[in-house]
Amino acid sequence: MKDAVPPAVQRALRARFPEALDSARRLLRQPSVSATGEGVAECAEMVRQMMAEIGCKTRMWKKGGHPLVIGELDVGAPVTLIEYEMYDVQPVGDLDAWKVPPFAAEVRTVPGVGRAVVARGSTNSKGALANHLFTWKTIRDVDEMPVNLKILAEGEEEISSANFIEYIRTHRRELRAQGAIANDYSEDLRGVPTVYLGVKGCLYLTIWSRGNRTAGGPMEGEIHSSDAVWIASPVWRLLQALDTLVDEDQRPVIDGIWDEVRRPAKAEVAMVRRLAKKFDPKTWLREGKVAKFKYDLPKVDLLLRYLYEPTVNICGIHSGYVDHGGTKTILPHEAYAKVDIRLVKDMTVGGTLRKLRAHFAKRGFGDLRIDVHGPYGPARTDPTSWIARAAIETVEAHGKVPEVWPSSGGTMPAFAFDEYLHLPWVATGLGHGAHAHAPNEYASIDGMRRFIAAEATLVYTAAKRGKAVAK
Amino acid sequence: MKDAVPPAVQRALRARFPEALDSARRLLRQPSVSATGEGVAECAEMVRQMMAEIGCKTRMWKKGGHPLVIGELDVGAPVTLIEYEMYDVQPVGDLDAWKVPPFAAEVRTVPGVGRAVVARGSTNSKGALANHLFTWKTIRDVDEMPVNLKILAEGEEEISSANFIEYIRTHRRELRAQGAIANDYSEDLRGVPTVYLGVKGCLYLTIWSRGNRTAGGPMEGEIHSSDAVWIASPVWRLLQALDTLVDEDQRPVIDGIWDEVRRPAKAEVAMVRRLAKKFDPKTWLREGKVAKFKYDLPKVDLLLRYLYEPTVNICGIHSGYVDHGGTKTILPHEAYAKVDIRLVKDMTVGGTLRKLRAHFAKRGFGDLRIDVHGPYGPARTDPTSWIARAAIETVEAHGKVPEVWPSSGGTMPAFAFDEYLHLPWVATGLGHGAHAHAPNEYASIDGMRRFIAAEATLVYTAAKRGKAVAK
Repeated sequence: MKDAVPPAVQRALRARFPEALDSARRLLRQPSVSATGEGVAECAEMVRQMMAEIGCKTRMWKKGGHPLVIGELDVGAPVTLIEYEMYDVQPVGDLDAWKVPPFAAEVRTVPGVGRAVVARGSTNSKGALANHLFTWKTIRDVDEMPVNLKILAEGEEEISSANFIEYIRTHRRELRAQGAIANDYSEDLRGVPTVYLGVKGCLYLTIWSRGNRTAGGPMEGEIHSSDAVWIASPVWRLLQALDTLVDEDQRPVIDGIWDEVRRPAKAEVAMVRRLAKKFDPKTWLREGKVAKFKYDLPKVDLLLRYLYEPTVNICGIHSGYVDHGGTKTILPHEAYAKVDIRLVKDMTVGGTLRKLRAHFAKRGFGDLRIDVHGPYGPARTDPTSWIARAAIETVEAHGKVPEVWPSSGGTMPAFAFDEYLHLPWVATGLGHGAHAHAPNEYASIDGMRRFIAAEATLVYTAAKRGKAVAK
Repeated sequence: MKDAVPPAVQRALRARFPEALDSARRLLRQPSVSATGEGVAECAEMVRQMMAEIGCKTRMWKKGGHPLVIGELDVGAPVTLIEYEMYDVQPVGDLDAWKVPPFAAEVRTVPGVGRAVVARGSTNSKGALANHLFTWKTIRDVDEMPVNLKILAEGEEEISSANFIEYIRTHRRELRAQGAIANDYSEDLRGVPTVYLGVKGCLYLTIWSRGNRTAGGPMEGEIHSSDAVWIASPVWRLLQALDTLVDEDQRPVIDGIWDEVRRPAKAEVAMVRRLAKKFDPKTWLREGKVAKFKYDLPKVDLLLRYLYEPTVNICGIHSGYVDHGGTKTILPHEAYAKVDIRLVKDMTVGGTLRKLRAHFAKRGFGDLRIDVHGPYGPARTDPTSWIARAAIETVEAHGKVPEVWPSSGGTMPAFAFDEYLHLPWVATGLGHGAHAHAPNEYASIDGMRRFIAAEATLVYTAAKRGKAVAK
């Protein structure tokens, strides 16, 4: 397939690559740890300036938290793209495990990969952010930009995306566009890239059981466990309530929760069949140090469950005395569990929460308190949508056959494009990196070259394909 | 009722009371915190010397842990008593909450109580230990001791009594006697003493659920919670297993557990009826800050459940991520609960554990690991036994009407007398103290006088009443 990018732009991107590498390393040298706040404000300003150099109108937006950096470039093109970026990073973690200082952005040879920038954020995701900005700047220098851009670079991806979600929710008019893109280095070690057309939603809850006048139990502090014979325990109450949420296979049985679960469409099942050919369950289990799957099913059915079923999982649970070596005999006055419910299409955050509360109320557990943290809805892009086609075509133009996933098993705030803007979105990208969240995070330098070239292709391809949907 | 104590002994006990108070304060000034080991060895030696001054053959015995101090006095009397004592204390806790240094044994006026020794261990139980040793020493000085004594003073009561239980289990021949006594200050603020004829047993367990080849789940560390859709969670497994242990009222439903629960005898029900007259549920609930009991039952039935029913209680539970403010999405590879099962007659530690394991195995939870800590059996003394009668008669000889409890709701290692020695035992004592385990623990000085006088009465009464059972 012929590349849609004008030869002059292709040449400039290749010739100026040292600038691209420099700008990525410069951005990586600026810490931006959202969990601690280290360097976040400085990094936001650096990103704003890089956007301004492309010719964007820029601004910062925040409602508490770290700023969302917004860059808008209106060239009067029929097609407008929303470009999702993140400039925050995870904490560096165990410094002794790093072979280089995590914010030095040194170039090292990674066995099996080649030369790579080793730094916190290199692959997740400041490398791709810098590469994107470089690509757009170069196109602007050499050619007319064929699309309008609305660039949203958030500083809270690692801590729940509150500003980003709130901005999308409250700025629908300003965010009119034809599609949204959240690209990153997606090639694995074999060089196979992925195209993601969906993510699951995630409703993260703390469910509390405390002694109270309705249910009984100690209300202000632990009491002696000998009283368990005639005083109700909030711990048992929590366990009994939680136990009603799943069946023997630990699948959700919250009243009505399956009513809104959308069955995969034919095109999606076909995608899963193609995926199943590459998927190796044994390797997957070995990497996770897991002995077996819950279900003894063929690969396609296993993947269909993985991608199209909701879950209720316990991330943590705590009550009372949990030290080892002692025998403290108490009846604790409170207990809580941290529960995440993964949502699939067409489940919603609000609807699921209402069902959970009704489920508890019906069984006499209406007194349990539920705190909601960072709720994300699910998101799905139709594989026949113009942006999905543009993304696949782009990857193929660079000689690669992508794994097309109808959904990731994980969660990111893409639901905001889906739920609030009704826009198709896609997550893909050439290039390779690894060790996100871990020590010695890296991004391949050759991969950056491929990423940049493919992103230019995507811009021109989107300009062409997106016209059909632009009114 | 006439006091059985010779007038010369009574006079000496009164005249020498300043010595008794001195020796109690001296013992209290010696720290003996079993949890940390602070002063324990020095205190054990001090107790050994005090026993030697009575004329006891003394020795220390330990198999790990803190020594059991043993004093034997054989005067060739027909009746032998085992005297249970403890010389260890709880940690002092929050020092700022103490009005006096916890090991200064200062004398202060306690409102509503009068002059009292304020010190860690004063009421639990070094005050009574010193008072006991003083009583026996004085009897020896003035009269013939009318009984033989086997005094066992343990240094691990606050940390599970391992040495004590092991000694009893392995020295049955040396411990031949007619009865055992575990007396302490038992009067409440109204001056009403108690006689306890039983305790519940306690089987304290840590129940572990971990990923494994049979049940699935991650085996070496947490994995991403998105995998909950196809990987089994050890946390759910623990919750589902625990949930089978109790019914809606949180009463035990472990297979066969009620088969060995002995119904209260007529004499016991009669005791409970008498107790119920004094028992005020509202005061009890107010003190524990509890809104209500599990059952809406008349006082007698409530007390019968309290005293004669086993329980399965969760003292603590833990798994995974339990911090607040974050949203870490993991599927933990292990979870555990700290469970105490209170045993009533005729349940045994071994039998209950076997039933629990069989219950789990039958339901497919045989892979859960169960660690057993400090298991205590239940203990019950027949209210018509000679030692129960001697104890009640003693209290009455001092002008008091005791509350006679067929059992405490709590646990102490008295089961060792019952299970290994087949000896009737009793726990009572005049005198008053409070704030055991808490700051500003105290023992009333007037109460010490009453305790000493009554203990002398018990020795002479036991000599008389015990003869009938001594062969």
